[in-house]
Amino acid sequence: MFNPTDHPHRRYDPLGGDWVLVSPHRAKRPWQGQQEAPDRAPRPAHDPGCYLCAGNVRVNGERNPDYQGTYVFANDFAALTPDTPDAPPGPDPLFQSMSARGTSRVICFSPDHAKSLPQLPLPALRGVVDTWCEQAAELGASYRWVQVFENKGAAMGCSNPHPHGQVWATSFLPDLPAREDRLQRAYHTEHGRPLLLDVAEREAEARERLVVETTHWLAVVPYWAAWPFETLLLPRFPVQRLEDLNDEQRTDLALALKRLTTRYDNLFQTSFPYSMGWHGAPYGEGDNTQAWQLHAHFHPPLLRSASVRKFMVGFEMLAEAQRDLTPEQAAAMLRAVSDEVHYLDAVD
Amino acid sequence: MFNPTDHPHRRYDPLGGDWVLVSPHRAKRPWQGQQEAPDRAPRPAHDPGCYLCAGNVRVNGERNPDYQGTYVFANDFAALTPDTPDAPPGPDPLFQSMSARGTSRVICFSPDHAKSLPQLPLPALRGVVDTWCEQAAELGASYRWVQVFENKGAAMGCSNPHPHGQVWATSFLPDLPAREDRLQRAYHTEHGRPLLLDVAEREAEARERLVVETTHWLAVVPYWAAWPFETLLLPRFPVQRLEDLNDEQRTDLALALKRLTTRYDNLFQTSFPYSMGWHGAPYGEGDNTQAWQLHAHFHPPLLRSASVRKFMVGFEMLAEAQRDLTPEQAAAMLRAVSDEVHYLDAVD
Ligand SMILES: O=P(O)(O)O[C@H]1O[C@H](CO)[C@@H](O)[C@H](O)[C@H]1O
Ligand SMILES: O=P(O)(O)O[C@H]1O[C@H](CO)[C@@H](O)[C@H](O)[C@H]1O
Repeated sequence: MFNPTDHPHRRYDPLGGDWVLVSPHRAKRPWQGQQEAPDRAPRPAHDPGCYLCAGNVRVNGERNPDYQGTYVFANDFAALTPDTPDAPPGPDPLFQSMSARGTSRVICFSPDHAKSLPQLPLPALRGVVDTWCEQAAELGASYRWVQVFENKGAAMGCSNPHPHGQVWATSFLPDLPAREDRLQRAYHTEHGRPLLLDVAEREAEARERLVVETTHWLAVVPYWAAWPFETLLLPRFPVQRLEDLNDEQRTDLALALKRLTTRYDNLFQTSFPYSMGWHGAPYGEGDNTQAWQLHAHFHPPLLRSASVRKFMVGFEMLAEAQRDLTPEQAAAMLRAVSDEVHYLDAVD
Repeated sequence: MFNPTDHPHRRYDPLGGDWVLVSPHRAKRPWQGQQEAPDRAPRPAHDPGCYLCAGNVRVNGERNPDYQGTYVFANDFAALTPDTPDAPPGPDPLFQSMSARGTSRVICFSPDHAKSLPQLPLPALRGVVDTWCEQAAELGASYRWVQVFENKGAAMGCSNPHPHGQVWATSFLPDLPAREDRLQRAYHTEHGRPLLLDVAEREAEARERLVVETTHWLAVVPYWAAWPFETLLLPRFPVQRLEDLNDEQRTDLALALKRLTTRYDNLFQTSFPYSMGWHGAPYGEGDNTQAWQLHAHFHPPLLRSASVRKFMVGFEMLAEAQRDLTPEQAAAMLRAVSDEVHYLDAVD
C-alpha cells in the first residue's frame, strides 16, 4: 500500500504551479561530494575591513554613517538602473526583449558585524521589520514590484558576513511573483478566499508541518517544499503587503522570525545559510489585489549537516525539483530543536 | 538610446516560458564571496577507491565488469522505484500528490578515471552518444519521460570525478519538459514548424551567439540564456528523439560535443563544471510529436574564472533569473578559445 514516508511521489505547489519529486527512501545514500565550510568562526562586533560596518568607507569612496539600528543605501553595483531608456519592441517571437528599470539597495540589519537575525534582540528585529515595511511602501510608489530579500552565508552567494539583506524594485512583475499572482487570483475566483489564508488555517490544524506558531504568524515546511528545510512564513490574518502590518503584527513577526531562525541555526549548530524574501501584492493594480496574501519564503540549502547540502542540479535543473526527505520529517526535525536558546548562547 | 550591451533588460525564453533579467553593466563588480576549488588535479587512469572504475566493488557489494567503452548500471540509491504502489487521489486542491514510478541508472562514459568528455577520442564519444540513444529507446518503451543528463564537477553536486552521467526515467512528464511540450506545440500550431528548428536557422545566420557549428549541429548561447555560459545544442535537421539520429548525425554529434566541451574547458583552463541533459519528445503520445525538436541544455555555473561562479539565489530564487553579461558577450568569449586543442594537451 502507498505510504508517503517510503514511496516516491510528486506533490503540487498551488502557489508556484510546480511539482516536486519526493524520494524519502533516498536519505540513506552516502555522500562523497563537495563539503560546505560550516560558518562557525567567531566574528568581531566591528571589522575595520568590512564595507558594511558603521563608519567604514565603501568601494565608491562613500563613508557609512555611525548607524545604530538598520542602515539602507543604494547598491554600489546595482543590477537595475532607474533611468534605462525604452527598448524598441522586436518583431520576432523567438527573440523578444524589453527594457528594465529598477533600483537595488542594501539593508544593513545591525551595526554589529557578528550578529545574524536570530542573535539580535527583539527590538532590533522589530527595527528590521519596520525597515522592510518602509522600503516596500517607498519603492512601491514608483515600481510594479518590490523584492525584499536576504542571501545569508557563503553557500548562498553572500559575499559579506555582516548581517544584511537587499531590496530590488522593478518596473515589471518578475516571473515567480507573476505565477503566484496568476494562481492566487484563480484560487480566489474559485473559492472566494485567499489561497494562503486557507493554507495557514489547514496547517494550524494539521500541525505536522508546523515549525513556529505565534499569535499572528505561522512558519511551516510547505506540503510542496523543494529545499530540504524550506519554510513558508504566513500571517494568520488577511494582509496583502508588508506596509499594511500594524504595530502588534510587526512585533509578533519579529518574534516569529527570531524563533524560526533560531531553530534553523540550532538544527546543525551552524549559522544556517538561506535565501529568504517577501512576496506581497504587486503595485499599480488599483484595489484588485484581494486574492493576495503576504508571505515570506525561506530557501535553505543544507540537507544533512552543516557541511552537506542539497544540489538542485541535473535532474532538478532539467526536469523537476527533487527532495530526499518528506516535508513532515523536515518539520519534525526543526521542531525537535529549541526555538528559544540559540546554540551559541547555550550553557551546558 | 537603448543599447543591450549597456542597459538592463529582460529577454524571453520561448522554449521554457521564463524571462531573464540581463544586467550587462554589473560584470564590473568585485567579488569577495565564496571561491570554488578549480578542478586541475591530475588523476590516475584507474583509482582503486573509485566505485565507478572497471573491476572495482560498489557499495552494495557488486563488482563492476572489466568494461571497455561505456558501462550502465542501476543507481544504488535511486530516487525512483519501478514498482511504487498507486496513491489514492486526495480531495484537497491545496494538498495534491501522485505516486511516482521510475528508474535511475548510472552511465560510465569510459573506464579511464582521468578523462572527461572533451578528452575522450571521437570514437569513444560516439560510443557515449550510442549509449544515450540506446537508453532512451529502451526506457522510452516503458516510461513517459527519459531524462539523460550529466552532473560534472563538485560545484554541480557530482560526488565522483570518474566521467559519468545518469538517466532517470519517470512515469510522468516532469515540470520543465511539460512546459517545453506546451510551448513547442503552441508554436507549431501557429507557425507550422518546430520552434527549435526556426531558432537554429536564425542563429546559423545571425552568428553572434554561435559557439560551435558542424555539418548537422549547432551550439549557441541562447538569446535567453540564464547561466553565464549556458548553451543549447541544436540539430540543424528535424529530429524528435535521441534514438532517431542516424549514423552520420551521431558521429557528427560526437564532434560537436568534443568541440563544445573543449571550448568550455579552455575558457578558464579548468575542467568546466556543468549540468547537461537531453530533451526529446515524450513517449506514449502516439505520432503527435511533430512540434518537438531534440536538443541538449548545458548549464555551467562559472562566471568569471575557474573559482568564481554565478549564484542563482535571492532575487533569482524569489523573483527571476538574472545574468551579468550578455549572451552575445559569452558566445564571443567561448569562440575566442580553441575548439580543437584542449588546454591540457597544449604544447607551449
Ligand atoms: O545521484 P548523485 O549523482 O549522487 O546526485 C546528484 O545528482 C542528482 C540528480 O541530478 C541530484 O538529485 C543530487 O542532488 C546530486 O547531488
Ligand atoms: O549583490 P550580491 O549580494 O553581491 O550578490 C548576490 O545576490 C544577488 C541577488 O540575489 C545575486 O544576483 C548574486 O548572484 C549573488 O552573488
